[in-house]
Amino acid sequence: MTQHVYLFTEGRAAMRTLLGGKGANLAEMTRIGLPVPPGFTITAATCLAYGRGGGTFPEGLNEQVETALAVVEGLVGRRFGAAERPLLVSVRSGAAVSMPGMMDTVLNLGLNDATVLAHARDTGDARFAWDCYRRFLQMFGSVVLGVAHHEFEHVLAGFKARLGVQADTDLAPADLQELVAAYQALIVAEAGQAFPQEPRAQLEAALRAVFGSWDNPRAKVYRRVHKIADDMGTAVNVQSMVFGNMGQTSATGVVFTRDPSTGEKTVHGEYLLNAQGEDVVAGIRTPHPIAQMQAELPDAFAELYATSERLEAHFGDMQDIEFTVERGKLWMLQCRTGKRAPGAAIRIAADFVREGKIDKAQAVLRVTPEDLQKAMHPRIDPAAALDVIARGQPASPGAAQGQLCFDPDEAVRLHAAGGQVLLVRPETTPDDIHGMVASTGFVTTRGGTTCHAAIVARGMGKPCVVGCADLHIDFDAGQLHVGARTIAAGQWLTIDGGDGRIVVGRAPLVDASMSGDFAELLGWADEFRRLKVRANADNPPDAEKARAFGAEGIGLCRTEHMFGQGGHHPERMAVVQRMILADTQVDRQAALDELFPMQRDDFDGILRAMAPHPVTIRLLDPPLHEFLPAAEDLAVAVAVARAEGRAAPREEKLLAAVRQLAEVNPMLGLRGVRLGLVMPEVYEMQVRALITAAENLHMQGIPVRPEIMIPLVGHVEELRRMKAMIDRITAELQPNVSFQVGTMIEVPRAALTAGAIAGIAEFFSFGTNDLTQMTWGYSRDDAEGGFLAQYVADKVLAVNPFVSIDRDGVGRLIQMACVEGRAVRPNLHLGICGEHGGDPDSIAFCHAAGLDYVSCSPYRVPVARLAAAQAALAAGGAKASTSAV
Amino acid sequence: MTQHVYLFTEGRAAMRTLLGGKGANLAEMTRIGLPVPPGFTITAATCLAYGRGGGTFPEGLNEQVETALAVVEGLVGRRFGAAERPLLVSVRSGAAVSMPGMMDTVLNLGLNDATVLAHARDTGDARFAWDCYRRFLQMFGSVVLGVAHHEFEHVLAGFKARLGVQADTDLAPADLQELVAAYQALIVAEAGQAFPQEPRAQLEAALRAVFGSWDNPRAKVYRRVHKIADDMGTAVNVQSMVFGNMGQTSATGVVFTRDPSTGEKTVHGEYLLNAQGEDVVAGIRTPHPIAQMQAELPDAFAELYATSERLEAHFGDMQDIEFTVERGKLWMLQCRTGKRAPGAAIRIAADFVREGKIDKAQAVLRVTPEDLQKAMHPRIDPAAALDVIARGQPASPGAAQGQLCFDPDEAVRLHAAGGQVLLVRPETTPDDIHGMVASTGFVTTRGGTTCHAAIVARGMGKPCVVGCADLHIDFDAGQLHVGARTIAAGQWLTIDGGDGRIVVGRAPLVDASMSGDFAELLGWADEFRRLKVRANADNPPDAEKARAFGAEGIGLCRTEHMFGQGGHHPERMAVVQRMILADTQVDRQAALDELFPMQRDDFDGILRAMAPHPVTIRLLDPPLHEFLPAAEDLAVAVAVARAEGRAAPREEKLLAAVRQLAEVNPMLGLRGVRLGLVMPEVYEMQVRALITAAENLHMQGIPVRPEIMIPLVGHVEELRRMKAMIDRITAELQPNVSFQVGTMIEVPRAALTAGAIAGIAEFFSFGTNDLTQMTWGYSRDDAEGGFLAQYVADKVLAVNPFVSIDRDGVGRLIQMACVEGRAVRPNLHLGICGEHGGDPDSIAFCHAAGLDYVSCSPYRVPVARLAAAQAALAAGGAKASTSAV
Repeated sequence: MTQHVYLFTEGRAAMRTLLGGKGANLAEMTRIGLPVPPGFTITAATCLAYGRGGGTFPEGLNEQVETALAVVEGLVGRRFGAAERPLLVSVRSGAAVSMPGMMDTVLNLGLNDATVLAHARDTGDARFAWDCYRRFLQMFGSVVLGVAHHEFEHVLAGFKARLGVQADTDLAPADLQELVAAYQALIVAEAGQAFPQEPRAQLEAALRAVFGSWDNPRAKVYRRVHKIADDMGTAVNVQSMVFGNMGQTSATGVVFTRDPSTGEKTVHGEYLLNAQGEDVVAGIRTPHPIAQMQAELPDAFAELYATSERLEAHFGDMQDIEFTVERGKLWMLQCRTGKRAPGAAIRIAADFVREGKIDKAQAVLRVTPEDLQKAMHPRIDPAAALDVIARGQPASPGAAQGQLCFDPDEAVRLHAAGGQVLLVRPETTPDDIHGMVASTGFVTTRGGTTCHAAIVARGMGKPCVVGCADLHIDFDAGQLHVGARTIAAGQWLTIDGGDGRIVVGRAPLVDASMSGDFAELLGWADEFRRLKVRANADNPPDAEKARAFGAEGIGLCRTEHMFGQGGHHPERMAVVQRMILADTQVDRQAALDELFPMQRDDFDGILRAMAPHPVTIRLLDPPLHEFLPAAEDLAVAVAVARAEGRAAPREEKLLAAVRQLAEVNPMLGLRGVRLGLVMPEVYEMQVRALITAAENLHMQGIPVRPEIMIPLVGHVEELRRMKAMIDRITAELQPNVSFQVGTMIEVPRAALTAGAIAGIAEFFSFGTNDLTQMTWGYSRDDAEGGFLAQYVADKVLAVNPFVSIDRDGVGRLIQMACVEGRAVRPNLHLGICGEHGGDPDSIAFCHAAGLDYVSCSPYRVPVARLAAAQAALAAGGAKASTSAV
Repeated sequence: MTQHVYLFTEGRAAMRTLLGGKGANLAEMTRIGLPVPPGFTITAATCLAYGRGGGTFPEGLNEQVETALAVVEGLVGRRFGAAERPLLVSVRSGAAVSMPGMMDTVLNLGLNDATVLAHARDTGDARFAWDCYRRFLQMFGSVVLGVAHHEFEHVLAGFKARLGVQADTDLAPADLQELVAAYQALIVAEAGQAFPQEPRAQLEAALRAVFGSWDNPRAKVYRRVHKIADDMGTAVNVQSMVFGNMGQTSATGVVFTRDPSTGEKTVHGEYLLNAQGEDVVAGIRTPHPIAQMQAELPDAFAELYATSERLEAHFGDMQDIEFTVERGKLWMLQCRTGKRAPGAAIRIAADFVREGKIDKAQAVLRVTPEDLQKAMHPRIDPAAALDVIARGQPASPGAAQGQLCFDPDEAVRLHAAGGQVLLVRPETTPDDIHGMVASTGFVTTRGGTTCHAAIVARGMGKPCVVGCADLHIDFDAGQLHVGARTIAAGQWLTIDGGDGRIVVGRAPLVDASMSGDFAELLGWADEFRRLKVRANADNPPDAEKARAFGAEGIGLCRTEHMFGQGGHHPERMAVVQRMILADTQVDRQAALDELFPMQRDDFDGILRAMAPHPVTIRLLDPPLHEFLPAAEDLAVAVAVARAEGRAAPREEKLLAAVRQLAEVNPMLGLRGVRLGLVMPEVYEMQVRALITAAENLHMQGIPVRPEIMIPLVGHVEELRRMKAMIDRITAELQPNVSFQVGTMIEVPRAALTAGAIAGIAEFFSFGTNDLTQMTWGYSRDDAEGGFLAQYVADKVLAVNPFVSIDRDGVGRLIQMACVEGRAVRPNLHLGICGEHGGDPDSIAFCHAAGLDYVSCSPYRVPVARLAAAQAALAAGGAKASTSAV
């Protein structure tokens, strides 16, 4: 016979799958002798059997419940349904995985027209007993019988109006008795059946309701969203009631064993005298800090503190505990691992190691990468009252505030005048960079979490909220409309890039505690990880920043910024344009000769800043028209000039050139190595500049490690010719410094022909941004603010493939390329430099695929270090750590 | 000891690899007793050994040459270098694969200041002997000693001027003797060495020259271009000279055993009395038709005819024969398989089967798909004198002519007025379709063979030349400039889409012989092929055309043309635009309701035309902005209106809508199934229209087989939702007709996750155009006229991957998808509908990959049928044919 029912005395914490989280922990607390009101748990397997059986109770369930009830009756000294000393119970669901608010709870079950009187006698409080009964009817009526909750509220409100009373507590016992009758009548009218007076019928109906709630639509959706399996079922806990509302020696409360905001080692929580748990949750009365309880209920307080310490030690983590004091006696109603703020998570993990409670590996696994990231930014004070006007998609964590501004140029002016600016735009483009540099944070009304604004924001470590569709910018009026409200430019706004809130005014901020714990935890992480972590950086300051965060090299140094792209080095733009528009080889070479010393000095700076670590330099990648004005703007200027009878020769010439270079799909056009083959002078200049700079540093005794990376290779012949060009320049310059030559793997065909490419390349760096674009056929610029956002919202895709590596498609290509590349060149060095390099799930994939390093923005380096360690620990193949406890 | 030298009596045809094509066939003719001037062949392996040895003769070579020479001397009755009856020889290269004009030949070797006198005595013609010597010096001097050919011409011209003679033949023996002396002086001056008088020294030097010519740069490039291996080497043939220029009983000529232009069974060729082969080739004298020889040299003629018939029968194919008659005696100098015009190839193959000389499989293998394609179009009369002004890339075969026109609207006007128009444009776009419909053919100055113009041309079966960069269009003047020439609009042009020629005037055309042989050969091909052949067609006339060419279904029916794209159904465009721009769901549905009956009737037409064959309908694929005006045009209109103080509300509204839909990379944007998910009403209307039409036909007893194809699927969930939508509509309409639901595989990720997708799809159709774009990261619109053209020209890529399937990349994805799809669904139906479906090399790949069918434009169907048969025959897995000989 299947065991459907486990007394709390029969279970333990490890039986979570069978008994659910709540049931397993109640049993564990019982097992170690803590004061838990007696009860039993019906297993999650029983719930599934009930569902499979089409709603019939599995064989033996009734009998086992009966037996367990009898044991509980014996322990409590009360009988279920008895006219004297009746046993009242709570019935609560509790799955193995927490699904807060998703399933149902019924309290005070066992009350009826007869037992309510006994309950009044037992408690010596008729008002209390009738109020219990009233609440039970309301809960049972709505949860079990399906009568809408507001129907009960409606009856109650009518009652109070008729009697002229304000608060529920003003109702006399007789009033409550009359209300009970009205509730029973309501149930008959609405549910078409009488409220069951028989407690066993109540219990069976409640069990059916909780079993059934596993498959209610709300719970199904929740599971789908949170990727929880449908075949787990929920356990049901039936527990004898205790009452925190039996006068001034009773209380109820919630404590954490440490401060969940700061991680401080002190019991932290709140309680209410003479109250039920419901009252705390509903916020009707303001609870008191737990420390006050010492004066009011000293014995219970002392026992609670001792129990708290014991539970934390027992479970090996900070606990979240619910308790009730009934007439001076402490009862434990629930305990579970407590949620905590990001900074607190780090501190608690570090403290636990120092207290000898966990080892370093456990500590590393206990802090989520998201927590670590969040802990690096200031945030809005969680205690502050906020005027939240909208929510967008959180794109770059942390809080930022400033005066509302719509125009990048204006932002620069305000910033220069000492102002603090928050930039709000429909979207941002590389043309807005100067304004973004001048702002504390950005909001866009369009775009997803990997749109331009989001990428720049994360790169800069500035908070950002994107895709906030409720905001409507009126550029002409200089106003922001949100529903009926209007915010004028210059007003203060605060944003929370961690949760997407847009707040009017200067919300109070709290600084991140960049404590020593942070660095210590990362140090431990470094002991376990196999993957190296590099940063994507284009200039010495970013390189310095990356080193400070622990980067072990640069995995992607983009040279287009050195060419003036994206508002960097505006003084170079004219030379670059001259180079692009040159009519003759001589003119082009002249422009390149002007760029050469700048480029050489760029390389000098970044190699010097990163020595002795490797620096992967990617030769020029973007299409040339990105360095020229937009065709549409030029066409309009030309047409307007003509309409006005003016000449616009410069614009006309530029327009012709831009048209010449224009492409229908620039992402798939003349860029990367294609440029290197079609216009070889540019790459030659870059290679010459790099080798010259590296050689100078080498001769100064600075140990530089340059790596030349060719972008967008799709066929080995492209790389072969670039390698020949580099060999030619090397033969000419005869440098002493050594360097590697490798390629991005970002075109699907490169991955499919990786074996051939590895015949030339000394390293592969997976450019997963473009590889994702091409493998999926998604133009990121278009898709993320468009159909892809809708795909994710509609669950066509579980996750945006630009955020986490798509293992089935892109991941498969990467794995093929790793295996086939290494088959040809066993010491082929493998890394990733797409934005996925900073995403924990993708880092786990990179570890499994056997990559040597990940590279990400400097601000993601700590996250990557942690995620790499967790991946190694999860894979069980962690680097042995001699210092781990 | 390695055998370096084979006497003609020792070799045979099968020894082609060792003896080269020429040597093997000379030996074969000798072997079967034909009159071949005695000689021997030095093997190709010897040439390689010579190269490997750094230019030293391999051991034994000199001795073997000496021995062979002795045998030849004996057979001819002359001695090499003897003062009486000297033996003269020719030295010719001859590799296993023909490399015309790439390597060297020396005639009359053995002449010197002494033997020339004996030669004069032998021939009784001093002028002839000295002329032979003069020619030999010129040939030896340039080929062996490296003196530029024009230096000799220069000396000769000076001589003639000084003597006041016009023709070479006017030079007297004494003049020639003087010329010989002058040539010898020239050699000393230019080559820095004396002409070697010793015949054995001449022979050794000539052998070295021919061996060395295998590795001359010209030959190397030729081999690279024609994919000929570098490790074959060339054989060298040393053969005793015979002379066709020994008076009026001597002659030289070339015959084909059948007419190479028409395939007619008659010996066809030309000869010259008293001439050397050189004279025929150089075109100095006009040769006579071979039939005349019967009167002039009746015995030789009769023997030539008999020999011709014997050689054709012996080699089993039409032969190209070189002969010489020396004083009445016929000598055979060469025979090889003859080149023939496309129509002739078909007729000859068919005749050979009927004559019982080859079986059907051999006939099918003997006609190239290119020949078949060319045979389907009229062509420029090969005999006509042409004013060729330029050459572009041949893009769609056949000849077309018309009056030069630059403007599509003008083309429509001229055509309507009964004119014949040839359209010349920088490039074409869908906006030009009306003008293309009105033209006989098109030329573009930009673009490659798969540019818009080329695709439309092949689809329409109209001749087209693209990328003709030498043409410069002056739109303002209405003129075409080519170098110094100017052609005005309205002048007649003729183009040859098979070879890219642009001809001024109305060149005479000859019709293709769409003979019964054509159909018969294809019927034989059908007996061998396993692949089915379908056509890409969007309307009943195209479907009819495809059936006439033997299509067995429609593999791709694009529905965007039914939506007014590309100038089709212009009356629908307004409704489609209303649908796209609808502000409300109600407005959109109203527009779709208007489109529904049109769409239903479209489907009715095409299903009816193709019954009982399957028709694969692709739901709407392109991005919506393709149905709207261009943003830049609208922006200019709006700006100009503003500058002029006018209002342009319609343009402003349209511009806003177009901007909303604009995408940076439309190829990778909101199209295909993405549209089906984001704007589901459109696909629902299409599915409803298709099922309604199919059901109506089914109820009329017409056996229709519709297949619904979802484009651009990248994740199985996209297809799953579309299938659910189709199931919903099916459940509602309850049709009796059955149909399949499948998907394009055109996104790399679809191929990588084909197993999952096959769980839903009943068929895959590989959309290799887009699959190539995404796998390579090439935007076809941009690349083919740009860097890809340069890649192919520079040999970075051996072949344009849009023309022939890239087996290593795209092909690998296709193979993975086939294997993994069929593992999940063993009866998964597999086809290809990209342009590769009409390319023979790609068809061979499709056969090998196990596809069920290829689909191509109607005009490519015959080619595909043939290529499919050849693929099956080449793979050895041909369908057994009971009727094959």
